[in-house]
Amino acid sequence: MTDLKTAALEYHAHPRPGKLSVELTKATATARDLSLAYSPGVAAPVREIARDPELAYRYTGKGNLVAVISDGTAILGLGNLGPLASKPVMEGKGVLFKRFAGIDVFDIEVDAESPQAFIDTVKRISITFGGINLEDIKAPECFDIERTLIEQCDIPVFHDDQHGTAIVTAAGLLNALEIAGKNLPEAKIVCLGAGAAAISCMKLLVGMGADIRNIYMLDRKGVVHSGRDDLNQYKAVFAHETDKRTMSEALEGADVFVGLSGADLLSPDDLNRMAVNPIVFACSNPDPEIKPEVAFATRSDVIMATGRSDYPNQVNNVLGFPFIFRGALDVRATRINEEMKIAAAHALRELAKLPVPEEVKVAYGVDSLEFGREYIIPKPLDPRLITLVSDAVAKAAIKTGVATRPYPENYPLKSVNDVFTG
Amino acid sequence: MTDLKTAALEYHAHPRPGKLSVELTKATATARDLSLAYSPGVAAPVREIARDPELAYRYTGKGNLVAVISDGTAILGLGNLGPLASKPVMEGKGVLFKRFAGIDVFDIEVDAESPQAFIDTVKRISITFGGINLEDIKAPECFDIERTLIEQCDIPVFHDDQHGTAIVTAAGLLNALEIAGKNLPEAKIVCLGAGAAAISCMKLLVGMGADIRNIYMLDRKGVVHSGRDDLNQYKAVFAHETDKRTMSEALEGADVFVGLSGADLLSPDDLNRMAVNPIVFACSNPDPEIKPEVAFATRSDVIMATGRSDYPNQVNNVLGFPFIFRGALDVRATRINEEMKIAAAHALRELAKLPVPEEVKVAYGVDSLEFGREYIIPKPLDPRLITLVSDAVAKAAIKTGVATRPYPENYPLKSVNDVFTG
Repeated sequence: MTDLKTAALEYHAHPRPGKLSVELTKATATARDLSLAYSPGVAAPVREIARDPELAYRYTGKGNLVAVISDGTAILGLGNLGPLASKPVMEGKGVLFKRFAGIDVFDIEVDAESPQAFIDTVKRISITFGGINLEDIKAPECFDIERTLIEQCDIPVFHDDQHGTAIVTAAGLLNALEIAGKNLPEAKIVCLGAGAAAISCMKLLVGMGADIRNIYMLDRKGVVHSGRDDLNQYKAVFAHETDKRTMSEALEGADVFVGLSGADLLSPDDLNRMAVNPIVFACSNPDPEIKPEVAFATRSDVIMATGRSDYPNQVNNVLGFPFIFRGALDVRATRINEEMKIAAAHALRELAKLPVPEEVKVAYGVDSLEFGREYIIPKPLDPRLITLVSDAVAKAAIKTGVATRPYPENYPLKSVNDVFTG
Repeated sequence: MTDLKTAALEYHAHPRPGKLSVELTKATATARDLSLAYSPGVAAPVREIARDPELAYRYTGKGNLVAVISDGTAILGLGNLGPLASKPVMEGKGVLFKRFAGIDVFDIEVDAESPQAFIDTVKRISITFGGINLEDIKAPECFDIERTLIEQCDIPVFHDDQHGTAIVTAAGLLNALEIAGKNLPEAKIVCLGAGAAAISCMKLLVGMGADIRNIYMLDRKGVVHSGRDDLNQYKAVFAHETDKRTMSEALEGADVFVGLSGADLLSPDDLNRMAVNPIVFACSNPDPEIKPEVAFATRSDVIMATGRSDYPNQVNNVLGFPFIFRGALDVRATRINEEMKIAAAHALRELAKLPVPEEVKVAYGVDSLEFGREYIIPKPLDPRLITLVSDAVAKAAIKTGVATRPYPENYPLKSVNDVFTG
């Protein structure tokens, strides 16, 4: 860990601070060039946009520009360290958006005295952008913030901590169920954790066919059930009548465990309570709810995913957000709806079933990557992600009527270099 | 003008919309690279910044990042067209910041329901940046907005429409007075216009030695004088006891005319009322208060500047803001104070007196550029601007105690490519 820390600090500091720069895309060598880029030539696009606001997409960078915005209240797993400390993460998110989907990102750190102040601020600057990715905002405030901004903005607003994790988890879970010979509607699911990602994840699974009566959510006080009077409205959705009170009780005969909580909270005894071919998504970072070596030592029929890159089946948000925004921007969707999220999950799921190109195996230093217990989720460096996921999202946007432009000429994208060539 | 319009729209739209992109400055090829740029490596700079906020300058782009922010209430000379229509101008400003001073810019368009809402918004996002350039905000609101943000932010906040024009005008005016054999303390000055640029310009001249009793400012109702009860607090500063009521009366024997008003408002008759070697800065754009050909046909002893690039002596803000921010950022100044503005004006003034490199003459297609009536203001493509102006600004910041870092090792900068190598 010390090596990683040293390397990360060096990476961020040298040869210049940070990870991003703003660069010119047009000629600026001559006085004539400058008279087009700025005064007096710039008056022409100004007048055009004043006449027709849609033309901002033709004459400015708006259409390929996403704001990554945080108030710093829930940075990674580190907690509320304030907006300034979140800046390396937000810039890092910008790196991933650019690297994987060719999207320009402005990171914006907001020092807001209240959720309402945060909402007002984001709303007022939203016209600058083609989309807004909210990040590292604590629950339960994040739910109301996202909902309000979705209502008030005419561009996509997406809280990745909620939906990104949910989409990738759903993709992996569907594949795991298939391998286990089970199906989502009948699967008994235990979700340890009741924060932003957990609630969004369970909501998405219900949207994809899971039976809410089969889902047991647990917070710090145990099972979320209808007899509790201490639940916020977001947890309350998952409260039903049950005698189960502890995780051990909930896990009896369960098919799926989803952990979005903390290190080592799933014991071998509890794992043994689960049904045959138990599916364990232990996504706490950096230390999972149960270490894969402990899980496999306990029983050999586990199908497992974690949040870590050094084990198979990493639940990594980067599989989702760059391509979801790419698809949404390219059909100029007014929002990212449930159908688009579900389409992304299905595209990810299907990608894991396709033969893996040699270059991807080389990138990860492995001889084999074949659909099965150790490969239910695609790899971030798979070049087919932008092709398949963006396409699925764009089509879902068109189908559900939130796209304001037709299917793009340059779709399906061949690679990130194919962006803008349509 | 139609050609320019067509060319400008083409320039903005093709081959991709806009003029800027966000690019990666660090390696992102491998999974290891990505683990440094984002999770889990990014936790290291997050923790460092949480411990010491100053380290945001070491580990993020903050220190070279300026926000160009507008509410769109006074776009160029076009008026209040709203924030979205201002986006091409704000992006254009970003082009100039990068091209001339290597500064990264995020343009932010704010849809604010009131000046206070605008202030609140900018304040809350200000930690993202190393400096803030306000742009195209109407008077008199712009004065209060800038003053409040300067008070509330610990980074430089600078309304370029006010101070940029003022600084370049002051530089040219001092040179014109020298050529005319006059001096600033005794110069009788008539200022047509009482908006943001006019008021800032006259304030700066007073700060540099002009006698406020020698300044006559005119708004739409005539001379600003102490008998008027319709003056806002900003104009009122320039009201003094006088019998003069009209521009013609004010111009009788005047040494300097500064026009920041509208086309053709200075008549040949009025020009003839001025003293010998009259100095006329007719800065209205695109059409000056008096056309140079009309002025020179009226009397041959005029020394003239305009806001246009197709006449000699263009008052162009790009001579100021990129280098002023460069100097301020490089010593991490907490503000841009009057001394720094005055230092910039003197540096520009002195630069016009130096022999001009051949490359500059070539860039402008002229055989000769020698200090005199036709060359009192440097040219924007002069590569010595970043060397001299940034240096003067940085030194003034250090001298006046607003710098929080010592004189930079890479100063004076040799060129824009020299940025960050210190």
